[in-house]
Amino acid sequence: MGTHTAGIDWTHRFSRTAVRTKTPEISWLMAQALEVPGLISLAAGFVDQETLPHETVREALGTLLDAADEVQSPLQYGTTYGDLALRQELLTRLEAEGVLPPGLPLDEETLFLGSGSQQILYLVCETLLDENDIVLLEAPTYFVVLGAMLSRGAQTVGVVTDEYGMNPDALAGALDQLEQRGELHRVKLLYLMSYSTNPQGVTLTLERRKRILEILSNCREKGYPILLLEDAAYRRLCFEEPPPPLFRLADDPDSVLYTESFSKSLSPGLRLGFGVGPKPLIQKMADLKGNHDFGSANLSQQIVKALLRSGGFDHHIALLRERYGGKARLVMELLEELFPPGVSWIEPSGGFYTWVTLPGGEDTGPNGRMFRAALDEKVLYVPGCLCYSEDRPESRHSSSIRLSFGMIGRDRLREGCRRLAEAARKMAPAAGAER
Amino acid sequence: MGTHTAGIDWTHRFSRTAVRTKTPEISWLMAQALEVPGLISLAAGFVDQETLPHETVREALGTLLDAADEVQSPLQYGTTYGDLALRQELLTRLEAEGVLPPGLPLDEETLFLGSGSQQILYLVCETLLDENDIVLLEAPTYFVVLGAMLSRGAQTVGVVTDEYGMNPDALAGALDQLEQRGELHRVKLLYLMSYSTNPQGVTLTLERRKRILEILSNCREKGYPILLLEDAAYRRLCFEEPPPPLFRLADDPDSVLYTESFSKSLSPGLRLGFGVGPKPLIQKMADLKGNHDFGSANLSQQIVKALLRSGGFDHHIALLRERYGGKARLVMELLEELFPPGVSWIEPSGGFYTWVTLPGGEDTGPNGRMFRAALDEKVLYVPGCLCYSEDRPESRHSSSIRLSFGMIGRDRLREGCRRLAEAARKMAPAAGAER
Repeated sequence: MGTHTAGIDWTHRFSRTAVRTKTPEISWLMAQALEVPGLISLAAGFVDQETLPHETVREALGTLLDAADEVQSPLQYGTTYGDLALRQELLTRLEAEGVLPPGLPLDEETLFLGSGSQQILYLVCETLLDENDIVLLEAPTYFVVLGAMLSRGAQTVGVVTDEYGMNPDALAGALDQLEQRGELHRVKLLYLMSYSTNPQGVTLTLERRKRILEILSNCREKGYPILLLEDAAYRRLCFEEPPPPLFRLADDPDSVLYTESFSKSLSPGLRLGFGVGPKPLIQKMADLKGNHDFGSANLSQQIVKALLRSGGFDHHIALLRERYGGKARLVMELLEELFPPGVSWIEPSGGFYTWVTLPGGEDTGPNGRMFRAALDEKVLYVPGCLCYSEDRPESRHSSSIRLSFGMIGRDRLREGCRRLAEAARKMAPAAGAER
Repeated sequence: MGTHTAGIDWTHRFSRTAVRTKTPEISWLMAQALEVPGLISLAAGFVDQETLPHETVREALGTLLDAADEVQSPLQYGTTYGDLALRQELLTRLEAEGVLPPGLPLDEETLFLGSGSQQILYLVCETLLDENDIVLLEAPTYFVVLGAMLSRGAQTVGVVTDEYGMNPDALAGALDQLEQRGELHRVKLLYLMSYSTNPQGVTLTLERRKRILEILSNCREKGYPILLLEDAAYRRLCFEEPPPPLFRLADDPDSVLYTESFSKSLSPGLRLGFGVGPKPLIQKMADLKGNHDFGSANLSQQIVKALLRSGGFDHHIALLRERYGGKARLVMELLEELFPPGVSWIEPSGGFYTWVTLPGGEDTGPNGRMFRAALDEKVLYVPGCLCYSEDRPESRHSSSIRLSFGMIGRDRLREGCRRLAEAARKMAPAAGAER
C-alpha cells in the first residue's frame, strides 16, 4: 500500500478519523507541477507577493520588542482564546462595521483566535459533527473544508451555486428532500462563503441572504436548528461595498458562527483568523483548541494588534482592493481577448479567483486532455471537479476551472492566461467533432 | 447548565468528541488566581521572562524581511509539513546530536512541524485513538495531554513514576494485567516525557529506557505493537548531559515517535515544535494537519531557521541552562531552609519544575486546606492531583505540588517559596493531631 515501514504497519492501527482522512488531491497536483520547469501557476491560492507588508511588520515588531518588559512580551505564551485586547479591538471594529448582530453584547468570550480561519472551521466541525451527520454547502465549495468534514465522517450535500451565490430554492429543495426521508435531524451545519467565494469569486446577494436565513428559521421553528457557518475570509477584499453579513441579518444571531482570516487581508505567514458566535459553541471550541495547541502564535497576534491600532491594517486593505481589482480587470480583458468562443466566466466581486467554464462539456479534470494540454503549455489550474462534494455529478465531471490571480504579477498573469487560452483553443475543434 | 443561549441549546447538538472535552480544571485555578491581588504564581509553566530573546529575534527578522523577495517571504504561506530547509536543518542536527536511530535515512517526510509540540501530541492521538483504546502514561503526567486523550475517548492507565522516571516493573505489571484481561490489543500508545518531566523534573535513567524498550519489543513480538510517543520538550534544558533518547535506543525505530518543542528552548510566542518518526504515521498526521490549519505560522518557522543557522539558538540554550540551573539550586536551598520537617521533593534534572510532597497525607487539592492556606498567603501552585489520570487514586487525593520556577525572577521566587513554606507550616501540627 506504500505506507508500510520495515516493521510495523501502523495503517492497521489508525483511528477511524485517520482512515477517513485522505491526502488532498490538490497536493498531488501541486507536486506534479513542481516537476514542470518554467510552469506558471494559476492554481495556488497564495496572496500577491508584492503586497506583503514587510515594512509595516518590521516597524510594528520593532515597537513591540522595544516595549517588551518583565510582564509582557510577544515571545511569551498567550492564552487559548487569544490576546484579550486584540479580541476587544476586533469586537469594537466588527460592531462599527455593522458585522455584529444588533444588541449582541460585546462579550470577549464570544470571539476567539485560531491559526487561520481554517482552524476555526475545523473546530466547528470537530465540535458539532459525528459520523453520518449531514452538512450542506455550496456546489462548488472551498475544497479544504470538504476534507475536514469528510475526516469527521460527515456526509456532505452540495447546493447549486451560481453567480449570485447559493441558490435558496435549491437549498429549500435539499432540505425538503431530507425532511421527507426523515433525515432533517441529521443536518448540523450549513457552510457557506458569503463574500467573493473561493472558488468562484461570487458574493451572495442581499435578497438571497435573507431567503437563506428564512429557510433556516423555518427549520429551527420545526425543531431542527442548523448552525450557519459563515466564512467571510474575503469580505475585506470586495471591490465594491458588499451587503451585510448573514450574521448581522439573522433574526436569531445565535444560529450563526462568523469567521474571518488575516491571511488574505494582511499576511498568511502570520497564520491567524478568528471566529465569533454563540458563546457556548465558542467556549467548547476553545476547550478543544486547548487540547490542540492551547493558543495560536502570540507573536502573530501582537503584530496584528499593533497594525489594527496603527492604521497599518486599514491602509493595507485599501492597497489590496486596488491591486486585486486591477488584476481582476486585467484577467477579464484577457479572457475576452484571448479565449475561444463559447468559454464563459464569472466576473469576480472581489478576492482573487474567477471561475472559467469550457464549452461542449469538456472535462477539465486531472485525467482529461485539457489538464494535460495546459501542462504542455506550462500552466497549472485547479480543476473544477475538486471543488464539489462527492454527492454532486460535477465531482466526477466538471467543465470548469478555478483560475487564481492572487500571487503572481501582471506580466506572468498575462503570460499564464495566454498559455491557458492556447490550451483551451486546442480543445474547441475536437469537442465539436466529438459531438 | 450555564451553556444556553437565548434561543438554541447547542449543547444538545455537540459531537461525542465535544461532549468528552472538558474545560481544564487548571483554567479555573488560574482564573481564581487573577482575583487575588499581589499573588505570586508558582503554577504557570511559562518560561523565564528575562531570557526571552528579544534582540536576537529582532535581528533575525530584520535580515529575513530585507531578504524577502518576489519568490520567498516569511509573510507568505508555507506548507503543511513546514519549511523544507528548516526540516532538513533539524534532521541534520538531530543526527549530529545522536537523537536519530542509526541508519535512519534523513528523509524530510519523517519530520514535520506543528504549532508547539502540543499539536504534534494531539495529532498522534487523533491519528491513532478511537473510543475505548488504551494509553499508558506516567503517574504523574503532563496534564494537558490527558485532556487530549480523554477527548478522543481513550482510556488512560497511569504507570507509577518516581525520581528515576517511569517504573519498568510497574509498566510490565500493567501490561500483564491488560493481557490477562484480553485487552492488550486495545493499547495503542505509551506516552512519556523522557527528559526533566513536567511535573516532576525527572529524567528517565538509561537502564530504565532500555527496560521499557524491551517490554515494548516483547509486546510487539506477541503481535501487539504499541507506539512509544517520546516527548522530549525539555531535553535541551537538562543541567547535565542526559542519556540518549529512546528513539535512538530502540531496536525497532519505527515504534517510536519523537517530539520536541521550541517553546521552552527558544520562545513560546513562536508556537512551534516538531515530530519525527515512522513515515506512514507522519504522513497521516500531516494529512490531518492539512485539515486543521494546513501549516503552522511561516513567520515563526523562518525565525527559528535563522536562529538555528546563526548560532543564536545554541547560544540561547547555553544561557537557559545556566539560568534555570541557578534557579533550581536556589529553590533547593529554599526548600531545605524554609520548609517544615517531613516535606520532601525531587531535585530537578533540568527544566523548571520540582515536585514537592507534604507529610501526613495532607491533601493539596483545590478543595483542601493547603490550597486555601496558600491562596491566603498569596501564592499559587498546581495541585498534584491534576497531574494524574482518573484511574489513579492520586487523581482524587495527592499530597504533592508541582512547583514551577520558570517564569519569575529570583526575588519573587524567594518570596513565593517563603509564602508556600508558611502555608505548609500551618498544615504540620493539625496533620499530626488528626492522625
